Amino acid sequence: MLGHGSELPVLGLDADDTLWENEERFHEVEARFRDLVAPWADHATADAALLATERANIARHGYGIKGFVLSMVLTAIDLSNGTISAKDLGRIVSWGHEMMAHPIELLDGVARTLADLVTTHRLLVITKGDLGDQLSKVDRSGIANLFWQVEVVPEKDPDAYRRVLSRHDVEPAAFTMVGNSVKSDILPVLTIGGRAVHVPHTTTWVFEEPDPAEVAAVNFPVLESFSQLPDFLIGQAS
Amino acid sequence: MLGHGSELPVLGLDADDTLWENEERFHEVEARFRDLVAPWADHATADAALLATERANIARHGYGIKGFVLSMVLTAIDLSNGTISAKDLGRIVSWGHEMMAHPIELLDGVARTLADLVTTHRLLVITKGDLGDQLSKVDRSGIANLFWQVEVVPEKDPDAYRRVLSRHDVEPAAFTMVGNSVKSDILPVLTIGGRAVHVPHTTTWVFEEPDPAEVAAVNFPVLESFSQLPDFLIGQAS
Repeated sequence: MLGHGSELPVLGLDADDTLWENEERFHEVEARFRDLVAPWADHATADAALLATERANIARHGYGIKGFVLSMVLTAIDLSNGTISAKDLGRIVSWGHEMMAHPIELLDGVARTLADLVTTHRLLVITKGDLGDQLSKVDRSGIANLFWQVEVVPEKDPDAYRRVLSRHDVEPAAFTMVGNSVKSDILPVLTIGGRAVHVPHTTTWVFEEPDPAEVAAVNFPVLESFSQLPDFLIGQAS
Repeated sequence: MLGHGSELPVLGLDADDTLWENEERFHEVEARFRDLVAPWADHATADAALLATERANIARHGYGIKGFVLSMVLTAIDLSNGTISAKDLGRIVSWGHEMMAHPIELLDGVARTLADLVTTHRLLVITKGDLGDQLSKVDRSGIANLFWQVEVVPEKDPDAYRRVLSRHDVEPAAFTMVGNSVKSDILPVLTIGGRAVHVPHTTTWVFEEPDPAEVAAVNFPVLESFSQLPDFLIGQAS
């Protein structure tokens, strides 16, 4: 962590699919899952069944890889009516291990842009998922030294943002969050009186699809690329 | 969280097996696991194999229930040489779900003692495991309102304590930690220059067994029961 002057404003950063690739890893494994259960279900059925299991378990499994693995195991047992082999289920667990060890791929322009932003802001990463896995990704990212603080939360709702900002003595009105998920990075921050900038990723996970009525009720800036952030923030401050 | 006067000293509290039962839950499920794999392994072999899997995976699985479930699944596949049924593996996952939903049982005297301590200390819970699961236990404990802050860390090593204390502006020399694990709650806190009080639980998980040489090199108070804490802390302060 850098010893930034405490006078710099705080910029909140989502991590997965804002700073580095994440969803792509899940999609790759979902494709393997479809093939694994192909003897019992077509692709659309497999996708729908996995999604239903994840939805039923998200509150207890959380958003990380381990919960994803447990949901795949349960779905495969269910789709195969208990006839899938133990070795195939073990294969699913090994995919999870592979995901946990996958090299971090920073998105285009992120490293350069953060090196710029760190001179004007204290960078506060706010991410959700498995605690150890999220912190390990930060460690392996090669840019951990740019972050002022890193917070892993189980769910990105208004209360979670309130708690994080309060523990770091940041006023919501002086806080800007940047992220690819309207549901997790934008709406809850606007709710607590902060500002938020949307930088969309190529795809949006269905669990991250926001309530259209909520989105229609608010305005927030959308940038085409993370690299546009410094100029945007300068324009906003002046 | 209570708005305690910032002048009160900070008391660190371990949660699992210090404030409430935890290990017992794991032992109950380990007994079921032994029975499940009994067709292929005797009890001692099953225990040793599960422990070896956990040890090999602790860095990526962490200390929580989900990692425990994944280790049981892998061990059962291994011990049965892939012949265990998918339904039996699904049973293991359902044990994990049961553990996650288990009511919190406060240990003897904890509620009364904390109601006392909260008048003299800011109470900072420091616990390791799955983020969502640990926070859910705090929520369900019925005593969450007594805690000043709750921190979930992936590993309780000196660096983790340094980070937690630094983010809350607590000087290690002014910090006392209480917990049942010499390895996780006592030694790392002494290492960073804090004080620590050991309140042993009935059993100690093998992963929490400290290095005997490290233990021999330090001195720390051991209390028979959590209820003795207020008197002990008053004696220490005077």
